[in-house]
Amino acid sequence: MEMKLAFAGFGNVARAFARMLSERRDDLARDYGLHFRTTAISTRNHGSVLSTDRIDLIEAAARVESGESLTELAGCESVRDSFSLVERCDADILFETSPLNALDGEPAVSYVRRALERRINVITANKGPVAFCYRELNLLARERGVSFRFEGTVMDGAPVFNLVERCLPAARVLGFEGVLNSTTNIILTGMEEGRSFEECLLAAQRAGIAEADSDYDIDGWDAAMKAVALANVLMDARVDPREITPRGIRSVTREAVEGAARRGRVIRLVARVEKVEDEIIISVAPEEVIALSPLGSLRGASNLLKIKTDLMGEIAILEHDPGVRQTAYALLSDMLAAVAQMRKP
Amino acid sequence: MEMKLAFAGFGNVARAFARMLSERRDDLARDYGLHFRTTAISTRNHGSVLSTDRIDLIEAAARVESGESLTELAGCESVRDSFSLVERCDADILFETSPLNALDGEPAVSYVRRALERRINVITANKGPVAFCYRELNLLARERGVSFRFEGTVMDGAPVFNLVERCLPAARVLGFEGVLNSTTNIILTGMEEGRSFEECLLAAQRAGIAEADSDYDIDGWDAAMKAVALANVLMDARVDPREITPRGIRSVTREAVEGAARRGRVIRLVARVEKVEDEIIISVAPEEVIALSPLGSLRGASNLLKIKTDLMGEIAILEHDPGVRQTAYALLSDMLAAVAQMRKP
Repeated sequence: MEMKLAFAGFGNVARAFARMLSERRDDLARDYGLHFRTTAISTRNHGSVLSTDRIDLIEAAARVESGESLTELAGCESVRDSFSLVERCDADILFETSPLNALDGEPAVSYVRRALERRINVITANKGPVAFCYRELNLLARERGVSFRFEGTVMDGAPVFNLVERCLPAARVLGFEGVLNSTTNIILTGMEEGRSFEECLLAAQRAGIAEADSDYDIDGWDAAMKAVALANVLMDARVDPREITPRGIRSVTREAVEGAARRGRVIRLVARVEKVEDEIIISVAPEEVIALSPLGSLRGASNLLKIKTDLMGEIAILEHDPGVRQTAYALLSDMLAAVAQMRKP
Repeated sequence: MEMKLAFAGFGNVARAFARMLSERRDDLARDYGLHFRTTAISTRNHGSVLSTDRIDLIEAAARVESGESLTELAGCESVRDSFSLVERCDADILFETSPLNALDGEPAVSYVRRALERRINVITANKGPVAFCYRELNLLARERGVSFRFEGTVMDGAPVFNLVERCLPAARVLGFEGVLNSTTNIILTGMEEGRSFEECLLAAQRAGIAEADSDYDIDGWDAAMKAVALANVLMDARVDPREITPRGIRSVTREAVEGAARRGRVIRLVARVEKVEDEIIISVAPEEVIALSPLGSLRGASNLLKIKTDLMGEIAILEHDPGVRQTAYALLSDMLAAVAQMRKP
């Protein structure tokens, strides 16, 4: 079974995934009977290409990293952009990793929609399509008999959606509470160690965790999108991200951090999803939490999501100091799930 | 599809599960097409019975709790013990919840083996059969085309085995680190609050978390059995529990707890599984861990297991303040998995 893979977006995450796939090619063939070749890659600044044969993923990654264009890859046809790629590629699975647009999720929503219409399985690490259009896109995927998967949108490759769907059968999710954004947690825990906000932000950017434009993180939008995705997917809510007004950490001062410490507390950017009389309430705000608690113990880029259920009480999943490889793993995990689904009669 | 259920052991966990099943009977029928009746129950002190029709689970639980025997239940035939029950019951699934024997896992191993030989799916919450005989019993179950499941043996109903099997595909487990025993954690965190060892133990016994005979917990055997089960099931190890020499918390003094606190640390009973040059090393011992860490943040009955992997880095699953209902949920989760397996062509 040879899967044809297409990439809409070929940034850090997609390239880390490409390398993981190459590393594990033999294991995937042996353990999952999975063979694959890449037929399409689009990038923002390095061209977009289709191939009727196969594109060498490692060569493509190296070209992007050395600033060269993909259009000179042997045997490839150049196309205009990701729209053309999604419209024309011959692929079984599309990996959609374009950047988040927190206003309406576009153009990623359109890429995903069109790919699903064309009966291409879609795996995304972009929160936009899930937060804005989960219900529509999930229905479309079902109608067309393909998968729409997005484990990497919340807590990278740590299982969150899969954990609830596969490991908590018959239990109802009553709510969530978590630290879901790495950049803000790096800043807050750095400030606890006496560094300035700006210094910590710069360190997070250098480590490749914060984007050059880190406003989405700092103002709480990234965490808010994740909370909406959790609510809509796992609690059957119909929240529009535009209804949420997150409070970020921009106004958290060193004095506030030190004051909390004197009370045995620390400040964390906490995302909450609660059900109050059949209404789903989502909030994202800096909160003082007890230092000697699981949320308080989270340092640096680490994330934690507490899941409140009826039958199983409260459990939490914790991701220790994630990097780009963890998000790449989410794409691999979703790919294996999509392939398993394709094999079902 | 009506499943016939048998219970070998009908203690706190099995009775909580019986009540959960009754509570959710309609949901299970609607969401999983699952119908069931009970045909056999054995107890240590309240008789053991078979029925060709159905045994009322709630009535049976009430009888045991009021000290009456099951043998007077209408339409039931009395049998001698759990051995006779496993030999003679007409059942699709056996729930094995007899107490742990840390010397050799018996008689639970024999119950499980015999049931699997008879092509009865087995779900156990008893660590013995998994720690001592996982390889043999798992192979036997495969040969007979039935399930052998045991999610409740480690961290109650929090997904541990299922998390790795279902949510970490293609990743290899490199090791574990965790606080897996509730009784010892209640004692250690109680001592941090200034109470005595004995006082805390009594409280754990009153709460139904520690057994009347709590030596297995305090001397580290419970945690050791869990670590062996994790290593053998998830790392393909072949460790015999008799090779492990756990160090428990009996010698932890109030002075040691206070000394650790002065260094920003707390004492936790930590179970570790590591792979060193192809050898699996298991240790269980009290350790000083940093108070402001996930392990350090665990209070009371809470448990945490960190899983180290190659592709996904480190994640942890945390169970907040579990009770008997969480272990009962493990039986339900395993039951749904066994039923799904039975339906596969």
